[in-house]
Amino acid sequence: MTSPWRATILTLYPEMFPGPLGLSLSGDALERGAWSLEARNIRDHGLGRHRAVDDTPAGGGAGMVLRCDVLAAAIDAAAAPDDPRPRLLMSPRGRPLTQQRVRSLSEGPGLIAVCGRFEGVDERVIAGRGLEEVSIGDYVLSGGEIAALVTIDACVRLLPGVMGKVASGVEESFEGPGLEYPHYTRPRDWEGRTIPDVLTGGNHDAIARWRAAEAARLTRERRPDLLARDRRPVATSADPTD
Amino acid sequence: MTSPWRATILTLYPEMFPGPLGLSLSGDALERGAWSLEARNIRDHGLGRHRAVDDTPAGGGAGMVLRCDVLAAAIDAAAAPDDPRPRLLMSPRGRPLTQQRVRSLSEGPGLIAVCGRFEGVDERVIAGRGLEEVSIGDYVLSGGEIAALVTIDACVRLLPGVMGKVASGVEESFEGPGLEYPHYTRPRDWEGRTIPDVLTGGNHDAIARWRAAEAARLTRERRPDLLARDRRPVATSADPTD
Repeated sequence: MTSPWRATILTLYPEMFPGPLGLSLSGDALERGAWSLEARNIRDHGLGRHRAVDDTPAGGGAGMVLRCDVLAAAIDAAAAPDDPRPRLLMSPRGRPLTQQRVRSLSEGPGLIAVCGRFEGVDERVIAGRGLEEVSIGDYVLSGGEIAALVTIDACVRLLPGVMGKVASGVEESFEGPGLEYPHYTRPRDWEGRTIPDVLTGGNHDAIARWRAAEAARLTRERRPDLLARDRRPVATSADPTD
Repeated sequence: MTSPWRATILTLYPEMFPGPLGLSLSGDALERGAWSLEARNIRDHGLGRHRAVDDTPAGGGAGMVLRCDVLAAAIDAAAAPDDPRPRLLMSPRGRPLTQQRVRSLSEGPGLIAVCGRFEGVDERVIAGRGLEEVSIGDYVLSGGEIAALVTIDACVRLLPGVMGKVASGVEESFEGPGLEYPHYTRPRDWEGRTIPDVLTGGNHDAIARWRAAEAARLTRERRPDLLARDRRPVATSADPTD
C-alpha cells in the first residue's frame, strides 16, 4: 500500500488547521488516515527572546517582511532535502491555481504549503529553497493560510475514496473544456419555475445533448477565456515566458 | 456611526465559521465589533423528519442537488427582501472574484454567502432569489464554505482600522496595474544571496523606480493577461501596445 497523501503547512497560525478541513468528507478522510495534515509554526524558528520572524523592508515602505533565514530554518526542519513534495508559497504573485494543477498535486505524494503574512516574504528564500509561488486568485488575502486551505481541499476531494463515485469529476466545471451545465431536482414546479422538459422526458441522448449545449452556452457567455485557453496545444504547459 | 460590515453565511456546516476568520487581525476586528459574522444552517429548513435538503438530479447523473425550495426558505429567513447586501452563491460557474470586486464589497454593507455542496444547487433558486454566482478560481472545491472564507477575508482586511497603515494597499498585487515588486529584509547577505544594492543605497527615487520596474517585469513575465485586462477603460497606466 502506498503512503497516504501528506500536507505540511508552515504558518504563524497553526491553530487555523485543520479548520474546515477537519469536517465533512475531508475530515472523515483525515480521521481514517486517507491523508494527513501537519501545521508547523514558523515562529518556532524565530530569533531571540521574542522569536522575531519579520523585519522592516529594505528600501523602506509599510509593513513587515518575513525573514528568509527564519523561513528557511522552518522549511528545513519540516522537509528533508529529498522530500519529493512540491513546496508551494501561497502568494498573489504566483502562477494561478487550476484544476489541472490540483489534479496533478492530488496524484503526487502531497504538498508543503508556506503561508506568508505581513507584506510578504524575503524574495531570496523563494530561489534558496525552491518554492513555487501559487496564487488562488486575483485578490489579496490577509495571509496564505486560507489559500492553503483552498488548495488542500481541492486536492483532497480528488483522493481515491474521499468522495466516492461523485469524484469521477468528469462532468464538473474545469474538468472538461468549460463550465458545468445547470442542475435541477424536485419539485418539478417551484414558484412557477419548472424543470426543463427534456430533463424529465427520459430520453437519455436528448438529456446528454441538452447538457452539453448548456455547458457550452454558459462557458461561451461567462468565460470565453476558458475556450481561448483550450485552444492552446498543451493546457498544462509552463508559461511561454518562463 | 454607520453599522458594521455584516456577513451572513448559509451552509450545511455552520461549525466551519468563523474558523480562520476568528484569529489574527480579522479575529481581533470581529471581537471588537468592526464586522460581524452569522453562520446559518440550511438544514434548519430541511424537509420532513430527516430534514432533507437535497434530492437526485433531474435527468439522472451522479451526486445530489440542493433543493431550491429548501435553499429559498433558508435565504428568506436570513435576509429580508429589502436587505441591501449582495447575495453571493459561491460556485465555480460564477464570475471570477477580483480585487476590484472585493474592494466594492468591502465598501458596502456586507454580504450574504450561500455555500453549495454536493453536485450543486437547483438552478431555479439563482434567479428566484437574485443570487450572484461568484467563483474564487478555476478549480473545484468540496463546497462553497472555503470560498466564502476567502471572500470574507479579502473584504475584512480592507475595512477601516482592521490592518492599520498596511491596508493602504496601493502597492499590493492587483491594486495597481499588476503584481507587486519583490521584498527584502535583513540579513543583507543570506547564503550568498544579497539584497539588491539599490534598496540599501538610500536613494528613494531610485528605489521607487526599481520597484516599479520590477513590478512591471514580473507582471509581464507571469501575468501578461493582467496587462491585457488593463487595456480596458479604466487603466491607470496606458499600455503602449494598446
